[in-house]
Amino acid sequence: MSRRTPGRKEWDVRASTLARNTHNKIRSIVENLRVEPNPQKELIALSIGDPTTFGNLNPPEQVLQAVRESVESHSSRGYAPAKGHLEARQAVAEYSAHQGDIEPDDVILSSGASHAIELAISAIADSGQNILIPRPGFMIYQTLSEGLGISIKFYNLLPDEQWKVDIDDLESQIDDDTAAIIVINPSNPCGSVYNKDHLLEILDVAARNHVPIIADEIYEHFVFSGHKFHALSSLSVDVPVLTCSGLTKRFLVPGWRMGWVIIHDRHNILGKEIRNGLSNLASRILGPSVLVQRALPSILKYTPQTFFDDVILFIENQAKLAYEELRRAPGLRPIMPQGAMYMMIEIKMVLFPNITNECQFVERLVKEQSVFCLPGKCFEYPNYMRIVLTVPEAYLREACQRIILFCTEHVDLGDKCKDMESNEVSVPQDIEVS
Amino acid sequence: MSRRTPGRKEWDVRASTLARNTHNKIRSIVENLRVEPNPQKELIALSIGDPTTFGNLNPPEQVLQAVRESVESHSSRGYAPAKGHLEARQAVAEYSAHQGDIEPDDVILSSGASHAIELAISAIADSGQNILIPRPGFMIYQTLSEGLGISIKFYNLLPDEQWKVDIDDLESQIDDDTAAIIVINPSNPCGSVYNKDHLLEILDVAARNHVPIIADEIYEHFVFSGHKFHALSSLSVDVPVLTCSGLTKRFLVPGWRMGWVIIHDRHNILGKEIRNGLSNLASRILGPSVLVQRALPSILKYTPQTFFDDVILFIENQAKLAYEELRRAPGLRPIMPQGAMYMMIEIKMVLFPNITNECQFVERLVKEQSVFCLPGKCFEYPNYMRIVLTVPEAYLREACQRIILFCTEHVDLGDKCKDMESNEVSVPQDIEVS
Ligand SMILES: Cc1ncc(COP(=O)(O)O)c(C=O)c1O
Ligand SMILES: Cc1ncc(COP(=O)(O)O)c(C=O)c1O
Repeated sequence: MSRRTPGRKEWDVRASTLARNTHNKIRSIVENLRVEPNPQKELIALSIGDPTTFGNLNPPEQVLQAVRESVESHSSRGYAPAKGHLEARQAVAEYSAHQGDIEPDDVILSSGASHAIELAISAIADSGQNILIPRPGFMIYQTLSEGLGISIKFYNLLPDEQWKVDIDDLESQIDDDTAAIIVINPSNPCGSVYNKDHLLEILDVAARNHVPIIADEIYEHFVFSGHKFHALSSLSVDVPVLTCSGLTKRFLVPGWRMGWVIIHDRHNILGKEIRNGLSNLASRILGPSVLVQRALPSILKYTPQTFFDDVILFIENQAKLAYEELRRAPGLRPIMPQGAMYMMIEIKMVLFPNITNECQFVERLVKEQSVFCLPGKCFEYPNYMRIVLTVPEAYLREACQRIILFCTEHVDLGDKCKDMESNEVSVPQDIEVS
Repeated sequence: MSRRTPGRKEWDVRASTLARNTHNKIRSIVENLRVEPNPQKELIALSIGDPTTFGNLNPPEQVLQAVRESVESHSSRGYAPAKGHLEARQAVAEYSAHQGDIEPDDVILSSGASHAIELAISAIADSGQNILIPRPGFMIYQTLSEGLGISIKFYNLLPDEQWKVDIDDLESQIDDDTAAIIVINPSNPCGSVYNKDHLLEILDVAARNHVPIIADEIYEHFVFSGHKFHALSSLSVDVPVLTCSGLTKRFLVPGWRMGWVIIHDRHNILGKEIRNGLSNLASRILGPSVLVQRALPSILKYTPQTFFDDVILFIENQAKLAYEELRRAPGLRPIMPQGAMYMMIEIKMVLFPNITNECQFVERLVKEQSVFCLPGKCFEYPNYMRIVLTVPEAYLREACQRIILFCTEHVDLGDKCKDMESNEVSVPQDIEVS
């Protein structure tokens, strides 16, 4: 099918279908928001899923040292095999032993988890097929699929059951064209962490319907006390799982762009075809930076557990802080996360009669209080907003106070409620950000 | 269209069309060669287009220092915009001023030139369209296109006119579905460098037929004395040009995976659609490693000209050496390159009656002499082989001697010729590799 005028009498260059149908949903929603902060108040962005933004969280010395050594090494300058250097893949295999038995050949290095997800989706799903993604869910799946003609179908998570999967809904979404189920655990944006039984329920659906799973575990091990992280692949009897992860979040280096896909295929269901497919796809851009590949063995082996523990403890304390504070915000209902680095907050829109929807809510919150949260629309989930918990404590505290103030000013609890609840709602004082 | 058995009674997971149709041609040809070296002789690989393989060519101190500083900088750890940090794009714009007027917004950073080419092709060409690529030519275009349903058409280069484009052939290949012409200058595998007049001829064809150009200039400035490099975009009046380049070859850091696409579109023919398309596509994997992005301004500004001059002088001397030596090899015709880091060598197959084709020629050359050259088949060009000139001088010298020996042993010049030429062919002595 030609899109050109026959004879070519003039210039007529069109962007490809792939380019036109590749959209970064969060970016385009954010660009369409009117987010001029209040000039009287310093902007606090609780919107960006980058734990390094504020400089309060830094990779451990071991990680930097490994890259310093890599810079000096001649071997970090040449091409690597497209799937990545054997030593690096070996190190990922060992680091990921909690996922199951892994050989270096089961690992393909990628430019961050985004690229890992791109490899997984584009290896397994064809134009005309669909993949199932959680709602609310991180929207990169849509960005990566729609341009390739792969459609997105949503399955619901249950906000009142700590964002568990609505198993019946999941199963009902599967059709003959479903190429994969995406499971994000721990979850962005929910911060939920699924227990063993629930993961087994999800695996059951996949097994019954013979649909492979792409497990996005970029937040693996990011779980608060009292919860346990289980790699989906470790529980699978026969369902093939492609697990996507990387250094990004756990090692606090999103900019380094180092991720990987791991093939879990005990019963050889994916077989050679998907393996070769993934290798072929990796050869398109020849793998992630060798500077980081060469550092990977040492990064994965020598980063001390105390570093991870400290980061998680910090995030958990932040979650508690935000939860305790925002419970006091009239019209909001924060949902306490169990891991990752986000919190979802329900906005009871009926109590804000002068605000149309959650997008307008976050716009006005920026305009009046200079606090920026992501609207639920970014995750296909209206009436909610997401905050990031990795900002410095003083910022988070201040932001919560401003959110409470904003709600207090705009909420309309109705005559009766107002009397009833007004005692609870103390207008907070302004707190200096240190 | 579903590829699945209705009802899903069993597992049936197939790789996608994209994955199945993405092939690395060089790799699969090389894998199918029988290349067991002669155990008596050390293997000399003249096959790998990685100038760092032998350790004789190293990036300059300034480049390493820039990355050292980047490792220490907090700002190299966080996410960058998908197109790359503004400072880095600004630096690329300045570094590329020889290409024309460039704004930072015309630059999109990528994971190496391969990714730049992927971005350019997939922004501009749709499934069902075609792109024109030179024959002989570097095969990454095929790897990147065919999976997306974009087909490849070849236009011929003329070996007897220093690999100039056969302009009539180029024009005759254009049809209504041609989305872009690829020009590789300086060329891999030919080492040719086009002069201004010839580039203008190519631009003329593109202008007359209203076809945009993707200029692969990863070997920009790699030209031997007496030749001059002209950026194609600098000569274009109205033809839109997407120029792909990067640090890979010139800075001797292929493993760092840093490249870029530059949009040259004076008459706004590509317009917003292609610009946005490129940005959308870049957002799929969120740009190249920020470790190198942060170092880019300093790398591009402070690398001394003497470094580049020394590298080129070395390669030019190697080219002369190989040319002078291999002219003496009976049955071979080396073609002197004008730049880049390769040399094409014609194998007069009629003079080797016991060798079927150039693939068998390189196989036997490995088996008997432990010298590995890439067969022309890797570039869609039978009866030729390509050697890499960046290996250490002693290796190159030794390899040439062995090639001469091999030819001498296998050539059959016919009775008359034999007498005539035998005086010229002195069997070379074995030279120790230092
Ligand atoms: C669930 C999820 N998956 C994948 C990614 C992408 O990670 P990376 O930066 O390694 O590409 C993110 C980033 O926020 C994420 O939240
Ligand atoms: C002509 C040409 N273009 C592009 C590339 C790919 O370069 P990079 O390693 O930056 O992806 C190469 C590598 O050999 C090449 O020869």
